[in-house]
Amino acid sequence: MKAPIEFYFDFASPYAYLAATQVEALAARLDRPLHWRAILMGAVLKVTGGVPNLAKPLQGDYLRRDVPRCARRLGVPLAHPLPSPFASLAASRAFYWLDAVGGEHSPVALAHAVFNAHWADGRDMAMPENVLDVAAGLGLDRAAVEAGLADPSVKERLRVETEAAIGRGVFGVPYFIVDDEPFWGADRMGELEAWVGGGW
Amino acid sequence: MKAPIEFYFDFASPYAYLAATQVEALAARLDRPLHWRAILMGAVLKVTGGVPNLAKPLQGDYLRRDVPRCARRLGVPLAHPLPSPFASLAASRAFYWLDAVGGEHSPVALAHAVFNAHWADGRDMAMPENVLDVAAGLGLDRAAVEAGLADPSVKERLRVETEAAIGRGVFGVPYFIVDDEPFWGADRMGELEAWVGGGW
Repeated sequence: MKAPIEFYFDFASPYAYLAATQVEALAARLDRPLHWRAILMGAVLKVTGGVPNLAKPLQGDYLRRDVPRCARRLGVPLAHPLPSPFASLAASRAFYWLDAVGGEHSPVALAHAVFNAHWADGRDMAMPENVLDVAAGLGLDRAAVEAGLADPSVKERLRVETEAAIGRGVFGVPYFIVDDEPFWGADRMGELEAWVGGGW
Repeated sequence: MKAPIEFYFDFASPYAYLAATQVEALAARLDRPLHWRAILMGAVLKVTGGVPNLAKPLQGDYLRRDVPRCARRLGVPLAHPLPSPFASLAASRAFYWLDAVGGEHSPVALAHAVFNAHWADGRDMAMPENVLDVAAGLGLDRAAVEAGLADPSVKERLRVETEAAIGRGVFGVPYFIVDDEPFWGADRMGELEAWVGGGW
């Protein structure tokens, strides 16, 4: 079994959204398993002392221009004006709850649906009700998901995944690790592919 | 006359060094004039409230791994271990002094020589004496350059260029502006090329 591509993301990141639309094709081309790892950038920023890039002077303006430009280049739908980053606690917990319970529904499908709802459709995924609506739209039992959001083991899983990511050096998203090699940024996916294809 | 590519850099940035080795070929392929604009990131960071990326927890470790990886991919020489960023005041002033006096010597040649001396050869370009040595190595009159470093109009030029860059939104280097379109990062030069080639 080949080593997986670890894909670290926060639903709150527009670049993670862009990466999420491309990463499965990338993994397929490389014939690698793909591990989706939702994390909370807020916890990362507490460690690094950073602030969200979109909130930074000058850089925020650039990113609000660059995200739509990148989306157009990739042909990925994006709401206009660009939605704001959001507190992704409920979305991340829903993702790990579904990962834990297993069954017919895929946590990756839920991840795509949440990303799309916020970034393409402009529905505020900070609101747990909206996350539940998205889950229900996929055929999930709304009450079961709601209970899952409050499940202590789900909360703990998200905390552990975020701490583990920090332990592996993740300081921003999207972030990829393959064969112990780290790549930061949606704009480095081509480099990751070349690296796996033979390094340099 | 086609609009130029504005290339903003700080000698202190290893990614600006990498970009400097590629940007002339890029401009030639696009048939665009190229304007080299040395700025002081220290002044930019005062506006943005940021800290140098190499000094950030986690991100600094990543960059110390990524810079050599990028250099290997590009076939660009790099000292090992990676030199530290440095106060590039003297180097930047020497660049603008030479730009102002004109003559047979090219400020771009001096820029390459300073970048190479620090990042490829590991000679500390924070030291004015070392900058003078590099200039002398190109055949420049050492005493004339030394006098230039203290010239008030040269100091003012560097200040004005840095302020103008901030006014155009430059928050990091390397940074490129072409046809009013901004691109941040050595890893976005391919995107700049595609943009000028037809946009999307």
